[in-house]
Amino acid sequence: MSSSRPRTRTRPRTVLAMSGETRDAILLPAALERLARVADVQPALLVTDFGADDPAQRAALRDTEALFTGWGCPPLDAAALSAMPRLRTVVHAAGSVKHHITQEVWDRGITVSTAATANALPVAEYTVAAILFANKHVLGSARVYRETRTRVNLLAEFPGIGNYHRTVGLVGASRIGRRVAELLRPFDLRVLVHDPYLDEERAQALGAELTPLDALVAQSDVVSIHAPELPQTRHLFDARRLALMRDGATLVNTARGSLVDTDALVEELVSGRIDAVLDHTEPEVLPADSPLYDLPNVLLTPHIAGSQGGELHRLADAAVDELERYAHGLPFAHAVDPRTLHQQA
Amino acid sequence: MSSSRPRTRTRPRTVLAMSGETRDAILLPAALERLARVADVQPALLVTDFGADDPAQRAALRDTEALFTGWGCPPLDAAALSAMPRLRTVVHAAGSVKHHITQEVWDRGITVSTAATANALPVAEYTVAAILFANKHVLGSARVYRETRTRVNLLAEFPGIGNYHRTVGLVGASRIGRRVAELLRPFDLRVLVHDPYLDEERAQALGAELTPLDALVAQSDVVSIHAPELPQTRHLFDARRLALMRDGATLVNTARGSLVDTDALVEELVSGRIDAVLDHTEPEVLPADSPLYDLPNVLLTPHIAGSQGGELHRLADAAVDELERYAHGLPFAHAVDPRTLHQQA
Repeated sequence: MSSSRPRTRTRPRTVLAMSGETRDAILLPAALERLARVADVQPALLVTDFGADDPAQRAALRDTEALFTGWGCPPLDAAALSAMPRLRTVVHAAGSVKHHITQEVWDRGITVSTAATANALPVAEYTVAAILFANKHVLGSARVYRETRTRVNLLAEFPGIGNYHRTVGLVGASRIGRRVAELLRPFDLRVLVHDPYLDEERAQALGAELTPLDALVAQSDVVSIHAPELPQTRHLFDARRLALMRDGATLVNTARGSLVDTDALVEELVSGRIDAVLDHTEPEVLPADSPLYDLPNVLLTPHIAGSQGGELHRLADAAVDELERYAHGLPFAHAVDPRTLHQQA
Repeated sequence: MSSSRPRTRTRPRTVLAMSGETRDAILLPAALERLARVADVQPALLVTDFGADDPAQRAALRDTEALFTGWGCPPLDAAALSAMPRLRTVVHAAGSVKHHITQEVWDRGITVSTAATANALPVAEYTVAAILFANKHVLGSARVYRETRTRVNLLAEFPGIGNYHRTVGLVGASRIGRRVAELLRPFDLRVLVHDPYLDEERAQALGAELTPLDALVAQSDVVSIHAPELPQTRHLFDARRLALMRDGATLVNTARGSLVDTDALVEELVSGRIDAVLDHTEPEVLPADSPLYDLPNVLLTPHIAGSQGGELHRLADAAVDELERYAHGLPFAHAVDPRTLHQQA
């Protein structure tokens, strides 16, 4: 007998492992109910220490097939794994798995899924809005209007204003960078992309032109950074590279602050030559006397682009989706591949 | 002999009718070159008065089959039309045709095309960026960060922050409103729409739920106005309707200022109960002492959402596209239907 339907398993035994704060932030009652339909889970049992001497926790871990993890999950090292002899899979309701997934996890053949794609969406959405506002000089024209309280001569103040046939350069075809490229498709913009791991064909599939980094920076009206924080990306935007940006162009940084030399950026911004939209800086909270707080050509937000508030629910929803796929014997939609982890943040 | 190709005509004789300022703003050299390939046109001859006593102009008008019009084109009344006995079509490189297309044009069976769709795109783009920023409290969180210069507790300051499962209400399924609905499709937002001329089926095709206006206003996290300025839409948002908005919701107005009772809106905004993104106000330039300039919960821009700067080139490009369709015997992609003109601004 054959069937085109995926095989239905029994609900996998599952344990929640994350901080209490994370659970409260990401799991709405509706998501917990769905989780309980998909998995055999004790919603009240929350593991924050795999070695804790709690009989109920030890029993749950001993039998568990799946871990539902989030921020605050301790590392799954050899000691932790020894408490979970039947563990076969980890679904992570957040982005990076580097804080809890160890080599021992891969060595045991445990599969891992991530909500990194779901976590990338809000950053991409913030970025797209920032690009559209930057080309349109929305904040600049608001400032001129507030200061002059008269009709604003837009072409005189902002030559080339608008989102038609402008060039956007994406630095990094990460999950976020690729999503930004997808979201920019409906607009009449030219999109350039730079990524050492991207080839011409995949760039074209994104609707973007693969471009060397310096050329991208020199041609773009908006440069948006989506590269990971790695030793080789530290100060990727130093004084020399920032100087390549066009007069009046905008730098958007929703990646890590360390990718930009803050002192060099401040110098360019104080001169007024370029604009910036900065969600991350180095250091993460700027000193109180940083000019970046008050410069009229800077939009500085406090690390908000990633999942916040209601967007955290998307992470749990995505992880429950993955657990449901696992329960039906389907492959993960967002499996973590240990071979490409080193390219990621 | 039959052919599946559209019939190729000779290039239609065409005259430019718009202000010199408009021509310089919308027609790049590349567009003029393309126009000259599509049409038999004298780019240096610009008509701003159909009755002018200039022999070259009179000769050109007498033979012309097409008018390429833009802002500053005088009305095509009976006298103007009598100068153009062979006129068969008008392609307008701007939005509304109400200023120059008269009943006589329709009576003579002249076809009319508009670049209103192209003109709608920048407004829709501004709106989408404004919606994404509003739900994410981008400007609010930037303000709190600037004021406190410390880590911002986003959930405490902005409960429900983010673009996941939020509700956006579109008031008016105009070209702009429909485009906003299209552009919102990739996001995890619920979209409501109100329009007296829209039925359930067409609302669903837009990915939106047809909703009575008051219910839409009461349910939405962002309410965006895309209705035309008509006697019956004046102060559509009066004190009663504004009071229906949810605490912390955002009103976006890229339509005409007259759709909102400014005094009632100022009262709501001064109280801090709601936020607003305003590109049009009544009056169009606000008095210097208007609180709207300085309120921290208001983004006030000087009528920039429509086509500006480089976006004006899109209007000419779209009009040349239409003239090319005409020259090949194809129907316009954006024909003006005189029967629905009364619904539009």
